[in-house]
Amino acid sequence: MSSTEELASFADRLCEASARAILPHFRAELAVENKLSQGFDPVTVADRAGESAIRALIEERFPDHGILGEEHGNVRLGADQVWVLDPIDGTRAFICGLPTWGTLIGLKQGGRPSFGVMDQPFVRERFYGDGTTAWRVSHGERHPLKCRPCARLDDAIMCTTHPGLFSDSEASVVNAIEDRVRTTRFGTDCYGYGMVAAGQVDLVIETGLQAYDIVALAPIVEGAGGVVTTWTGGSPADGGQIVASGDKRLHDEVLGLLARVAA
Amino acid sequence: MSSTEELASFADRLCEASARAILPHFRAELAVENKLSQGFDPVTVADRAGESAIRALIEERFPDHGILGEEHGNVRLGADQVWVLDPIDGTRAFICGLPTWGTLIGLKQGGRPSFGVMDQPFVRERFYGDGTTAWRVSHGERHPLKCRPCARLDDAIMCTTHPGLFSDSEASVVNAIEDRVRTTRFGTDCYGYGMVAAGQVDLVIETGLQAYDIVALAPIVEGAGGVVTTWTGGSPADGGQIVASGDKRLHDEVLGLLARVAA
Repeated sequence: MSSTEELASFADRLCEASARAILPHFRAELAVENKLSQGFDPVTVADRAGESAIRALIEERFPDHGILGEEHGNVRLGADQVWVLDPIDGTRAFICGLPTWGTLIGLKQGGRPSFGVMDQPFVRERFYGDGTTAWRVSHGERHPLKCRPCARLDDAIMCTTHPGLFSDSEASVVNAIEDRVRTTRFGTDCYGYGMVAAGQVDLVIETGLQAYDIVALAPIVEGAGGVVTTWTGGSPADGGQIVASGDKRLHDEVLGLLARVAA
Repeated sequence: MSSTEELASFADRLCEASARAILPHFRAELAVENKLSQGFDPVTVADRAGESAIRALIEERFPDHGILGEEHGNVRLGADQVWVLDPIDGTRAFICGLPTWGTLIGLKQGGRPSFGVMDQPFVRERFYGDGTTAWRVSHGERHPLKCRPCARLDDAIMCTTHPGLFSDSEASVVNAIEDRVRTTRFGTDCYGYGMVAAGQVDLVIETGLQAYDIVALAPIVEGAGGVVTTWTGGSPADGGQIVASGDKRLHDEVLGLLARVAA
């Protein structure tokens, strides 16, 4: 097993390879016009190119590790260590040209998310975590990541995806939570988790996540002192209904409220 | 009257001074804790510091120009040329640590928005426009800004603010528009207009804007070939209900739909 610093150094190489594959498609005029006229999807092309670049480096360095990816399927999922990849989390942001999508590279060990990186190559910042420690490197400067205290829902800043993504029963509870928090921010995707880890926001509530949407992010939030679970308080490793909090007291309060619609 | 390139060069100095004043407050741990414990608002402190820095340079270079600013009031509004300033557009994004707020510096000539800059100093990109031409400089590289064609609402990607900002009657019409567009993105603030100019999205619909929210952005969108008006088709110079489109055909269709709730 590699140390966190070794993994971070390897992840840097993965992020750089992925960025080289993806950035030419970000805000690319040609791709956008193709998309409109022929139903061609530039984000899928970029996503696949990014994942291919990452997988090639993992196969070379860790040929016995498993890989779970959104675009190119799964190999060796029974391995002790499995990489979980989403080269473009936040495809709507990507399509809109907004710099809030991210490249997610996670590692599960024995089924547990144990290391993760979230990279934003256009902004030029990268978030790292191993469940015990977490940091970001923005424009070449390293900063520790540390969640802030927030004991009560009424004081919380919450992030979530598009309001239309919740089922009716989920929405009834989530809307009641939105009415109580200090403010809600929509459409944050992976950046919401990064900002919980950075102590900027307190809460992310989402549903319908895939494993590759959350495995990389959980070790970052947890490494900054936060909590990430399903709405029933279980492991987030398989996605689904997910809640991330910067303060365990807030997390427990929110789990209590979500219990009625937790699957 | 200065040329566009002269104004752009001067605006670069304003943006740099503003960024030096604002960035120390962005994601600053101390400021956030102060805010939570004492009702102290770091975004207001940063906003005021940014505006002071910008105003000092304008007063030095153009002492006869007017200045309209969110934080420090108005001077010489009867002047032929009036600068219109919002150092932090997108205060929610700023508070959440998200890199999608922007510094807006606009110039009105004879009451008409004639030049504008939108700067994102953390991302390190800046958008410029004079109503006839528009460009962005991202990480030191200059790119022309050009809206894309989008003839019909059904094909449009739309940006808007938080869904809760519309009045009930406004919301009834805007929600019907949301149901027809291809996709809607919330919480984009000034970046929505930048992305219309960049040909990434097609439409921004907002309400309750102040002059300083839109004067800088209109010349950028118009310079890229788009249209910015109130919901009645009037000048956007005073803010209010605003719609920006990348394609005049789309703009006309949307104005027709908004007419019933346009004030």
